Amino acid sequence: MTDFRGGEVWLVGAGPGDPDLLTRKAERLMTEASVIFYDALVGEGVLALVPPHVRMVPVGKRSGRHSKDQTSIDRLIVEAALAGEKVVRLKGGDPAIFARSNEELEACRAEGISVRICPGITAASAAAADLGMSLTLRGLARRLTFVTAHALAGERVSLDWHALADPQATLAVYMGKAAARDVSAGLIAAGLPRDTPCALVEQASLPTGGEFLTRLDLLPIAARTALGDGPALILIGQAVGAAVLPQRANAYTGTVRASV
Amino acid sequence: MTDFRGGEVWLVGAGPGDPDLLTRKAERLMTEASVIFYDALVGEGVLALVPPHVRMVPVGKRSGRHSKDQTSIDRLIVEAALAGEKVVRLKGGDPAIFARSNEELEACRAEGISVRICPGITAASAAAADLGMSLTLRGLARRLTFVTAHALAGERVSLDWHALADPQATLAVYMGKAAARDVSAGLIAAGLPRDTPCALVEQASLPTGGEFLTRLDLLPIAARTALGDGPALILIGQAVGAAVLPQRANAYTGTVRASV
Repeated sequence: MTDFRGGEVWLVGAGPGDPDLLTRKAERLMTEASVIFYDALVGEGVLALVPPHVRMVPVGKRSGRHSKDQTSIDRLIVEAALAGEKVVRLKGGDPAIFARSNEELEACRAEGISVRICPGITAASAAAADLGMSLTLRGLARRLTFVTAHALAGERVSLDWHALADPQATLAVYMGKAAARDVSAGLIAAGLPRDTPCALVEQASLPTGGEFLTRLDLLPIAARTALGDGPALILIGQAVGAAVLPQRANAYTGTVRASV
Repeated sequence: MTDFRGGEVWLVGAGPGDPDLLTRKAERLMTEASVIFYDALVGEGVLALVPPHVRMVPVGKRSGRHSKDQTSIDRLIVEAALAGEKVVRLKGGDPAIFARSNEELEACRAEGISVRICPGITAASAAAADLGMSLTLRGLARRLTFVTAHALAGERVSLDWHALADPQATLAVYMGKAAARDVSAGLIAAGLPRDTPCALVEQASLPTGGEFLTRLDLLPIAARTALGDGPALILIGQAVGAAVLPQRANAYTGTVRASV
């Protein structure tokens, strides 16, 4: 039992998009809520599970277009809780991973509001499932690292490439498509082999999504020319060499096209 | 619809233990299976959701005690699929993270068996939810890294401490309790501050679990004296400074006890 009382807030992970990948707990909290503040990245199929009596408030943030800034979202949540509502803050993926949950947790706690987290499936787990691969390999991929390139769209991405360029690690770059050129150049300059296997995964878990297999030096081209214009996760490392494309996707692991 | 046919294999993430943190898809696959091979780490509450007509086969691996080796498990799965069974291989957490799924995927593919993955909530996400914290912090904890110390129990743990000792990263050490001394010493020697916040989380998501907040230099003492004897996840980094203990747990962030 979740014991969801008025005046409480739950930050709920909506998972990668497929409503079947929602947890049973998230589904129940969405049903018990009186108001749900949801991101643009929450899957339509997930939203369709919300009963009609629950008030739905979009506070959508999309890559490069913030319809509400974080402070406004914090205030909306706090005001709803102080008004006695059962508040769900529904976030794509897992609230603990690149979801700016800390700001919302602190805003609630500053007002003495009870706030809890219901975890969700993060995009890297869903992407690995789509590709039929493990993110870790015994002896070969012993470390798994998540970074985001999202906050820096439009600027050059600045990450510690030397720490990330570990041939025994798997790297997942969230919101990485716009930064693909910097990621590729940075990792190669730091010593990661040019032919390191990479995958681009758009809309992991959804039938409208797409996957693309490539290699580190060809990643910038793939990011520009493959798949659609949605946010994408990039997976990099030897473990990706075991990826298997679902039937809807096409591999692009050959030579650079002459026109590029 | 999962479209689960005889002769197929699904590697299914059972999540951290709380049956409410199972995905809707995992629950359905468990119901549609004809046989389930399950780990010792799968929660009892999860197993209780399996209908009585499904044949349950424990292939449990626990820290330090392997009741079946990996090759035997691979063979059991393959033989069941070749016999036309609907096979679920149920694993604690997420099949893509430190779950040795690659061996089972390859064993199935070598026999032409269809094998797919249903992702699960990994322990780090569940631990962060228990502690009411985000694993990433904008500007302060921009990188999230998972490593495992499990395979090396009994030996000295050998990891790339310099790459891991990043004050702007959050580190999750799976199965890390036995290796706490090496983790603490390695990270401090590589330059991570001695007072870096750490959490030990045993049985994340379960009411029988426990959490313990400490600091990097006191981590070995906490690992020996706090909590029970089950497997534990260690979280390390500035993000852990925002952790809030559930009421059942006690903080131990003070000085070293004289008797130690």
